[in-house]
Amino acid sequence: MRLARLIGTLSPRHPPPRSLPFSTTSSSSSSVASDAPARVLGVGGVLRGEPRRFSGADVAAYAAVSGDRNPLHLDAEFARGVAGFERGSVVHGMLVASLFPSLIASHFPGAIYVAQTLSFRQPVYVGDEVVAEVQAIYLKESKKRYIAKFTTKCFTNQECLVIDGEATTLLPTLVLNK
Amino acid sequence: MRLARLIGTLSPRHPPPRSLPFSTTSSSSSSVASDAPARVLGVGGVLRGEPRRFSGADVAAYAAVSGDRNPLHLDAEFARGVAGFERGSVVHGMLVASLFPSLIASHFPGAIYVAQTLSFRQPVYVGDEVVAEVQAIYLKESKKRYIAKFTTKCFTNQECLVIDGEATTLLPTLVLNK
Repeated sequence: MRLARLIGTLSPRHPPPRSLPFSTTSSSSSSVASDAPARVLGVGGVLRGEPRRFSGADVAAYAAVSGDRNPLHLDAEFARGVAGFERGSVVHGMLVASLFPSLIASHFPGAIYVAQTLSFRQPVYVGDEVVAEVQAIYLKESKKRYIAKFTTKCFTNQECLVIDGEATTLLPTLVLNK
Repeated sequence: MRLARLIGTLSPRHPPPRSLPFSTTSSSSSSVASDAPARVLGVGGVLRGEPRRFSGADVAAYAAVSGDRNPLHLDAEFARGVAGFERGSVVHGMLVASLFPSLIASHFPGAIYVAQTLSFRQPVYVGDEVVAEVQAIYLKESKKRYIAKFTTKCFTNQECLVIDGEATTLLPTLVLNK
């Protein structure tokens, strides 16, 4: 289940979005009536991911595929004792940050990532619930695609900002996939 | 085997590094004589990772743990036909970018990632050989740690820049682990 919310302004080249704000989940998107107006991303539009908890197994799987075996992520005693992370193993920041392209691509399959800035403000511990949120701040049509710039934020406990930054993408359309 | 190279200037608080430039691999680090001078990162010091090829299985594993199932990465026909990536499936940019913290942590276990900027300049296709390289551009001691800023670059074919950016980290020491 992926929770998504769009609070958007109109794109001049597309039909108007549904009344805003609204929420959908990925598995319930099929329940939207087929004659409902297309939902369109506009400047100011917000997409929010479903809550996610990275497990120890997730962190181990990511360490295996990325090769990043920093003991901060894999050894709770090391993380506590040496690095001062009192709650133990910390999820790789780049794994948490993967929620941003994941969220964007879930709404815009075929989205191409052009750039990303990331500020890791607080640690995310294994098992913490995190939610990613992106907001469109710039949209421009270019060569049958759309340059879309988003703020990218990730929160724990619905309010603590753990990652902040911006992403620049090329979207095939501004019409949301779900 | 991880190929690493350090071309560094001296840190005033540490013994001098070995003659530079030099190369080591992770598995051969134990062959360095125990009385060899410690190798110390200085401004200008370069660390280079071993060549890496991300396989289709790697991309699938990353998609599973990150949740990023953008068909650009998992469907070669989609990547070619819809997005114009003529050589097929593209490795997730954030997976390729994971080589930077992986490289830094391999030399400085316990390194804490503070920030990263990423510009994805060229696609990396499944099976392409990539090499990550970071260069220290700013070092400052702070509260028994070191603030270390690096340029972060990733190349294919030893010359084509595919990812460019900068990372800011907190290092527990400037003495290289290997």
